[in-house]
Amino acid sequence: MTTEFHGIIGYTITPFSHDGEQLDLPALGQSIDRLIEGGVHAIAPLGSTGEGAYLSDGEWQQVAQYSLERIGRRVPSIVSVSDLTTAGAVRRARFAQQHGADAVMVLPAAYWKLSEAEIVQHYRSIGAAIDLPIMLYNNPATSGTDMPVELILRIVREVPNVTMVKESTGDIQRMHKLQVLGEGQVPFYNGCNPLALEAFVAGASGWCTAAPNLIPALNLSLYEAVQAGELEQARALFYRQLPLLNFILKGGLPATIKAGLGMTGLPVGEPRRPVFGLNEQGRATLAALLEQLHQG
Amino acid sequence: MTTEFHGIIGYTITPFSHDGEQLDLPALGQSIDRLIEGGVHAIAPLGSTGEGAYLSDGEWQQVAQYSLERIGRRVPSIVSVSDLTTAGAVRRARFAQQHGADAVMVLPAAYWKLSEAEIVQHYRSIGAAIDLPIMLYNNPATSGTDMPVELILRIVREVPNVTMVKESTGDIQRMHKLQVLGEGQVPFYNGCNPLALEAFVAGASGWCTAAPNLIPALNLSLYEAVQAGELEQARALFYRQLPLLNFILKGGLPATIKAGLGMTGLPVGEPRRPVFGLNEQGRATLAALLEQLHQG
Amino acid sequence: MTTEFHGIIGYTITPFSHDGEQLDLPALGQSIDRLIEGGVHAIAPLGSTGEGAYLSDGEWQQVAQYSLERIGRRVPSIVSVSDLTTAGAVRRARFAQQHGADAVMVLPAAYWKLSEAEIVQHYRSIGAAIDLPIMLYNNPATSGTDMPVELILRIVREVPNVTMVKESTGDIQRMHKLQVLGEGQVPFYNGCNPLALEAFVAGASGWCTAAPNLIPALNLSLYEAVQAGELEQARALFYRQLPLLNFILKGGLPATIKAGLGMTGLPVGEPRRPVFGLNEQGRATLAALLEQLHQG
Amino acid sequence: MTTEFHGIIGYTITPFSHDGEQLDLPALGQSIDRLIEGGVHAIAPLGSTGEGAYLSDGEWQQVAQYSLERIGRRVPSIVSVSDLTTAGAVRRARFAQQHGADAVMVLPAAYWKLSEAEIVQHYRSIGAAIDLPIMLYNNPATSGTDMPVELILRIVREVPNVTMVKESTGDIQRMHKLQVLGEGQVPFYNGCNPLALEAFVAGASGWCTAAPNLIPALNLSLYEAVQAGELEQARALFYRQLPLLNFILKGGLPATIKAGLGMTGLPVGEPRRPVFGLNEQGRATLAALLEQLHQG
Repeated sequence: MTTEFHGIIGYTITPFSHDGEQLDLPALGQSIDRLIEGGVHAIAPLGSTGEGAYLSDGEWQQVAQYSLERIGRRVPSIVSVSDLTTAGAVRRARFAQQHGADAVMVLPAAYWKLSEAEIVQHYRSIGAAIDLPIMLYNNPATSGTDMPVELILRIVREVPNVTMVKESTGDIQRMHKLQVLGEGQVPFYNGCNPLALEAFVAGASGWCTAAPNLIPALNLSLYEAVQAGELEQARALFYRQLPLLNFILKGGLPATIKAGLGMTGLPVGEPRRPVFGLNEQGRATLAALLEQLHQG
Repeated sequence: MTTEFHGIIGYTITPFSHDGEQLDLPALGQSIDRLIEGGVHAIAPLGSTGEGAYLSDGEWQQVAQYSLERIGRRVPSIVSVSDLTTAGAVRRARFAQQHGADAVMVLPAAYWKLSEAEIVQHYRSIGAAIDLPIMLYNNPATSGTDMPVELILRIVREVPNVTMVKESTGDIQRMHKLQVLGEGQVPFYNGCNPLALEAFVAGASGWCTAAPNLIPALNLSLYEAVQAGELEQARALFYRQLPLLNFILKGGLPATIKAGLGMTGLPVGEPRRPVFGLNEQGRATLAALLEQLHQG
Repeated sequence: MTTEFHGIIGYTITPFSHDGEQLDLPALGQSIDRLIEGGVHAIAPLGSTGEGAYLSDGEWQQVAQYSLERIGRRVPSIVSVSDLTTAGAVRRARFAQQHGADAVMVLPAAYWKLSEAEIVQHYRSIGAAIDLPIMLYNNPATSGTDMPVELILRIVREVPNVTMVKESTGDIQRMHKLQVLGEGQVPFYNGCNPLALEAFVAGASGWCTAAPNLIPALNLSLYEAVQAGELEQARALFYRQLPLLNFILKGGLPATIKAGLGMTGLPVGEPRRPVFGLNEQGRATLAALLEQLHQG
Repeated sequence: MTTEFHGIIGYTITPFSHDGEQLDLPALGQSIDRLIEGGVHAIAPLGSTGEGAYLSDGEWQQVAQYSLERIGRRVPSIVSVSDLTTAGAVRRARFAQQHGADAVMVLPAAYWKLSEAEIVQHYRSIGAAIDLPIMLYNNPATSGTDMPVELILRIVREVPNVTMVKESTGDIQRMHKLQVLGEGQVPFYNGCNPLALEAFVAGASGWCTAAPNLIPALNLSLYEAVQAGELEQARALFYRQLPLLNFILKGGLPATIKAGLGMTGLPVGEPRRPVFGLNEQGRATLAALLEQLHQG
C-alpha cells in the first residue's frame, strides 16, 4: 500500500478577528505559505489545531475551500472532516473532495460512547461517499473514543479507502502493534509531538504536527536524520526541540501556536472561547523557548 | 437557597423520522404528555438523552421552542443549552429564556481540555446573559471534563445564577462532598441512574433521569419512599427497578428509551447516526425487563 | 446462608514500642478491651489497620494468638491471614483456627498480577486447609488485584467455606451487583468508611472499620438507625462522623488510629517504617475532629 | 556521574523443586553461567523475575549469597533488596554488601500507599546503611507506588549513593523527562521489555531484562546496533524479538522464563503458588516463538 503522505505533515491554525467572531482568511493564507516555505511535506487543514470543532458549518466550508485553494497543490493536502453525526462527516468529506483535497482525516468524535459496530459503520459511510483516501485518526483525549489496534486494522480491512492511520494516544506500543499486526503494510502516522523521535524509529511514515508553524527546520531535520540513519544526530535534534514540543502540547495547541505566530510576525488572533489565548506567563516562556531555538 | 426543582426530573427524547433526517415534533409532544401524566416533577428537554449534541442549530431551536410550548408550564422546565463554544451556549440560553424555560442546564462540553479558569469564564458568560437559574452539570463521561467539587462550589459562589448542581460521575462521595463543603446550602441532583437510592439517601434534591419515559410510577415511588423515611420500602423499590436502570445506561439512553417508547405504543424513530438503535437481542431483553416490572 | 458476623466489626491496631521494633502486647490487650466495651459486634485482628503485612511470621503468630486469647470469645473474631504465598496463607489460616478464631479474612495479596484461575486456586487451597468460614476481601488499592463481582461469586460457589464478601473498592455499584447476582444470599460487608451509610442502605450485613477505636458510639448508632429504618437520623449521624472517617482514610489508618488512641489515653506507638506516624498538623486536625464529636 | 552498569543486565530466576517448596541452588548456578556465557554485561539476582517477594528471609539470604558466589565477579552484580519494611530492606542491603554485591536495587514496595516523605526516608535509611551504589526502581505495576520523575531526581540529589534509576512504567516520556531534568547526568535503565529499542534511542544506559535467559544474542545485538548508530539494523532486530518480549511480559516473567529454560535444557521448576507455571497452550506458543528465533 503506497501513499503520498510522509514526513512532516503540518497543521494549520484558523485565524480569527480579535474578538473571536470573524474568520481572518488572509492571515490563514499567510500561515499556509509559511508552512510550505518552511518545507513541510503536506498540510492538514481543520484538524484539532485548526479548531475545526468550534466552527459553524458555514465557517468550516469557507476555511476548507480557502485552504485548498491557497495550498494549490504545492504540497498534498489532507482535510479533517470529523463531525459528531455521520451525515455531517459525510457532507464535509464530499465538500473536501469537491474542492480538491488529496485525502481526508476522520476522528470518530463522540458524545455518546460508540460501540465498535457504530465506529465501523461511521467509517464505512464516509468511505462510501468519497473516492479519496482516508486517514483514520485515534485520539481518545479529544474524541472520548479509544480505538484499539485490532479495531483500527479491522476498519482498514473493511473500508477500502481507509489506508492510513494516525495514532495520538502517546503510547508507542500502539505503533509497534500496528507495525506487527499490520505486517508492515499499513502506513501509520504519529500525532503525539513528544513521541516524534521514537515514532519514526518505530517505523512511522510521518509526523502530523502543528510545530512547523514555529520551528519547521528543526522538525524537518529530525525526520531527515532518522531517514539517514543518523541516530546520534536525531537524538540531539529531538532533545533540542522537546521542551517546545512539550510546551505547545501542555499549553494547548491553538493557544500556543497562535501566540507563537503572533510573536514571529503573523498576528492570527486568539482561540475561540471557552478556550483562552496564552496568558502573560505562558507568552514569556514561549518567547524564551523560541529565542533559544533560533539562536542555536 | 430555594429551588422549585426537586424529585423526579424527566428527560425527553428527540423523535426522528425513520431515516433519522427529520424531526418528528408531534411524537415529541406525545412523549412530553406521557411524562407529565406519569407524574414527573419537572421536564428537561434537549439533554444527553435528547441528542441535543447531534442537532443543527436550527433543529435545536425548533425542539426547544416546541417542547416549552407543549410543557406549557404544567411542570417546571429546564433546558440543556450546552455547546462547544461559549457564544453558542449563550445563544441557546437566551433562546430558552425567551421561550419560557424556567431554568437552563449547562455541561462544559469540550474538544480541547478546559482549564478551571476557562470553565469558570464559560459559566460566567452564560450566567451574565440570562436571568434564569442555571443547573451546572458535571458528567466527564460525555463532556471529557471532570469538575472537582471545589471548582463546582467556586462557580456556585462566583456566578450568582448558578444555583443547582447535577452530578453524574457515579461516585457517591462527590455528593457527600457537595453536601459537606456546600454546608447543605447547594441543592444537588443525581444524574446517574444506578445511584438513585443512595443519592436520595445522601441528600440529593432530585433525580434527573430518562427512566420515567418507561417506568414513571416506580421512579416516583422510590422518591416518595425516601421522602417518607421508609427505608425498607425504598430499598425494595430500588432493587426492583435497578436491572432496567442498568440496562438503559449500558445500552445507551437514546437507543433504549426510544426502543422502549416504541414498545409501549409511541413510535419515535431511532437515534441519529453514528449511534445505532437497539438491536434485536437488546429489544428482547428490554421487552422482558418491562414485562416483569409491569406485572409486579 | 447465615453468618454470625453483622453490624460493626472493629479492626485492631498492632502496638509497637516507640522505635517500632518490639510488639507491645499489653497495649494491644487494652485496645481490644476498649473495642469490646465500646460495643463492637465482632473484632478483626491483623487486618490492614493491624499492619499484618509488616510483621514477621513470628510476630504475626504472637499477635494472632494474643488477640484471640484476649478477645476470649466475648465477641466473634475474624483474623486476616493474607500472605503473598499460598503456603504462607494456609499456614496462617491453620494457626488462626488452632487458636480459636471464628473466621478468617483473605485478601489475594499479589506481587505479580494474578489470573482468575490463580486467585480461585488460592482460595481453594486455603478453604481446603481449614474448617472455618472465610471472608473474601476485595481491596485493589492495597492488594493490587481487583476481583470483579462475577469472580467473587464464582469463588463463593466453588469454595464451600468462602461465605462472606468484604468489598472495599469504594464503588457502591459493586454492592448492588453482589446483591443482585448473589440473589440476596451472599452476605457482604463494607470496608470503605465513607460509604458506611450507603452500604447499609444497599443491604450490607456489616461495616468492617477501624473507626470504633475512636468513636464506637457513633459507628454503632449509625448501624442502629439504619436497622430501625430511621433514615433522617442515619443521615444526620453519617454526616456527623464523615469528616473523621475521611480523615482516617486519607491520613492512613495505622497512623491516624494510633495517634487517636494516644490522644485518648492509650499510647500504642507509631506505625512501622516506612510508614510515618501522624505529623503535628495531622495531630492537630485529628484532635479538633475528636473534640467536636465528643462535645456534640 | 559514571557507573559500571550498562548494556544488557540480566535477571536471574529462582529455581524451586517441583512442588515449589525447596530451593534448587545448583540449577540457579547453571542459569547464572548461561547468562554470563550468553554475554550479559551484568546480573541482577532476586528481582521481580527472581520471585524475591515470595521467599522467606532465610531463603532470600541463601539465594543472594549463592548467586554472588557463583557470579564470582565475572560480571558486575546488582541485588534487589526490596522489602515492605525499611528495617527489612536495610538488613538485606547490608547482607548483599557483605557478600560482595556491586550495587543494590530498591523498589519502594508498599502495602499502605507511601507519601513522598516516606519514600525519601526509606531510600535515605537504606543509603545510610551501605556503601554501595543504589539503583532506584520505579514500577507501579508491582509496587503500587508510582514515583514521578521530580521525586526520583529529588532522591538522587538527597541520597548520595542513589546513582542509577530504573524506569518500568512503560511510558517513554518518563525517560525523556529523566534525561532533560537530570541534565543528562543521571544514568537511567529501562525495565519495560517492549520499550527496549526506544529506551536506548532515548538515551538509556542499559536494559534490565529477563530475556537473556532465553535469547541473549538477540538482546545483545539490539544494544550493539544502537551503540553503533545502525538504526535500520536496530529496528529489524527489535521487531524480530518483540513477539517474544511481549509474550514473556504478558505471560508473567517467572512462569515464561522458567518454562523457556526447561525447554532449552535447564529444568528450574515452576513459580511458587499462587503464581502458576505456564499452561500447555502457553508452552506451545513459547516453543514456537523460540523455534522461530533460533532458526532465523
